[in-house]
Amino acid sequence: MTRIAIDAMGGDHAPAEIVAGALWAAQDYGVGLDLVGKEDEIKAEIEKIRKAGGIYSDCGNRGRQRKIKIDVDNIDYMITHASEVIEMGEAVGQAIRKKKDSSIVKAVKSVADGTSDGIVAAGSTGAAMAASLFGLGRLKGITRPAIAVTLPTVEKPIILIDGGANSDATAQMLKQFAIMGATYSKHVLEIDNPRVGVMNIGEEVEKGNPLAKEAHKLLEEDSENINFVGNIEGKEIFLSKCDVVVCDGFVGNVALKVTEGASSMLFYLLQQELKSDILGMIIGLLAKPFMRRVYKRINYEEFGGCLLLGVRGISVIAHGRSRAYAIKNAVRVANEAVQRGVNSKISEFIEG
Amino acid sequence: MTRIAIDAMGGDHAPAEIVAGALWAAQDYGVGLDLVGKEDEIKAEIEKIRKAGGIYSDCGNRGRQRKIKIDVDNIDYMITHASEVIEMGEAVGQAIRKKKDSSIVKAVKSVADGTSDGIVAAGSTGAAMAASLFGLGRLKGITRPAIAVTLPTVEKPIILIDGGANSDATAQMLKQFAIMGATYSKHVLEIDNPRVGVMNIGEEVEKGNPLAKEAHKLLEEDSENINFVGNIEGKEIFLSKCDVVVCDGFVGNVALKVTEGASSMLFYLLQQELKSDILGMIIGLLAKPFMRRVYKRINYEEFGGCLLLGVRGISVIAHGRSRAYAIKNAVRVANEAVQRGVNSKISEFIEG
Repeated sequence: MTRIAIDAMGGDHAPAEIVAGALWAAQDYGVGLDLVGKEDEIKAEIEKIRKAGGIYSDCGNRGRQRKIKIDVDNIDYMITHASEVIEMGEAVGQAIRKKKDSSIVKAVKSVADGTSDGIVAAGSTGAAMAASLFGLGRLKGITRPAIAVTLPTVEKPIILIDGGANSDATAQMLKQFAIMGATYSKHVLEIDNPRVGVMNIGEEVEKGNPLAKEAHKLLEEDSENINFVGNIEGKEIFLSKCDVVVCDGFVGNVALKVTEGASSMLFYLLQQELKSDILGMIIGLLAKPFMRRVYKRINYEEFGGCLLLGVRGISVIAHGRSRAYAIKNAVRVANEAVQRGVNSKISEFIEG
Repeated sequence: MTRIAIDAMGGDHAPAEIVAGALWAAQDYGVGLDLVGKEDEIKAEIEKIRKAGGIYSDCGNRGRQRKIKIDVDNIDYMITHASEVIEMGEAVGQAIRKKKDSSIVKAVKSVADGTSDGIVAAGSTGAAMAASLFGLGRLKGITRPAIAVTLPTVEKPIILIDGGANSDATAQMLKQFAIMGATYSKHVLEIDNPRVGVMNIGEEVEKGNPLAKEAHKLLEEDSENINFVGNIEGKEIFLSKCDVVVCDGFVGNVALKVTEGASSMLFYLLQQELKSDILGMIIGLLAKPFMRRVYKRINYEEFGGCLLLGVRGISVIAHGRSRAYAIKNAVRVANEAVQRGVNSKISEFIEG
């Protein structure tokens, strides 16, 4: 049985929503859990869920909460006590070294020692990355792990890699990101021969900064192994012009956060306009279910979490704001990555 | 009288929409025009407008076209014949040197020789930048000109600089962008003591790539002259957390195009959902005026064009897709920049 280690203490809504989401996922996907964190708090949360017979969630549609039945006694979980927590904003390197009994370090250890097959963490992204990298090590041939993010488009979602692990990168690293992203796209998202593009500011080969130009060249040279479709501009990523878009973590993180910010702004402005008169308010009420469906299509909670690709183990980083529904989906992502053997596929690719 | 030179041949809808928008602006803002391009084509467009007594435009709201009366005989315009056109995708440097009789080169010349006070161009952005830089030269103390873009937010619009002129930049250049952006914000947008931020991937000082970190340091050191508010993340730019956000042209261009792409995707998904059943279609019809108002608030046509700051003259680069309404607003932007003496204010700032 696949077992997923959960940093039960990480995230804005830990431990309640983390434990709830993990149990929900365990029941839905038939995975086992290693819940890592303060034992008494985790036990208390489980007890609450057992008593209530389930949890409440809006299922990511911003709507009314509905009850999800959870039969705790049929779930295969263990608890690993960890007395410390790495807080948001702590100096990551130091915290990882000093807080050996922190939930994130011990959750990674659960994977490293073979107890679990993957980890899900919603706390400090920096801490999760560092703990995964130090605790699991890199895959052979990979210079730096990178964050693979699922981005909504007008058609099916695509993968953006790197979403923020490496704010500085080389072209060779971008090529590795391409390989990791394409492997994930093919084996987990089941995209046949995924199209890979380099994020750039124009279609032409000579466009862009030195990094983008060199990455373009490297990927073009390896067209036997990579289905390279050239430069992808910022607006094209939403038009499904490729399946994997590659960039350094600085550009990737800006792109992700701009997407989030622009989307929130649009929803806000539309709500504001609809509140401007009575007719608008009525239309706003009627339009709500439709807007919810749009929201659901672009909502990070649906995608659950980002995979840190390139480490020797499956590590899923969830949004700090994650509630149960997002955590459930993050566990799904981790489970799928484990089932499909993403890491061994990457290794096969790299080692030819 | 202020006179604006117009590259009448540049853009997807040239010359008809360019000439129409220029005349509209001339009438509304009382500026003179130097229409540069193929004389017979420009004359034919003007004749059409004279006969019709005006033009038709949707005024940027995607709605029905309405007639705008234009009294051609009361407009102060001249025509400068240019036999060539630089097409999209031409190798810019070469084209600028070879096509001396192109509309963009001659429109810039109209500013350089004092005939006009500023230029508006909707053709190839690369050609407009290169022609402006070579034809007008740099302001003293400015290493590289940069594109200042007006970005919508939940409150008032902010300036992003650089929007794509320099895909590679140094921290010193970013500091100059900050100065130029703040000057524009203060003197044209009338923002008192504009808040300047550096685009980054986290709030903390130690976050980001070397460029962002060094720019942070430089701007912090000059807090006497620059109202520096620190790092700004991609989603925060839409929350009006600063008035000017500084980045290199690669990151800036990605951010702009992602904004455009994410917004278009959202509108598309909402329309798609509303088309899914009869009730949705009715709600969609009723919601149209509200959606149009949102669209208007984020529509590039409202902002008209981007200023290329740092050259010795006012140069406004309009979107290649610009129709009359966008061109009219681009001329407004050029006129305001001329009236407020943006360039002399920048020089005063730089020279202390």
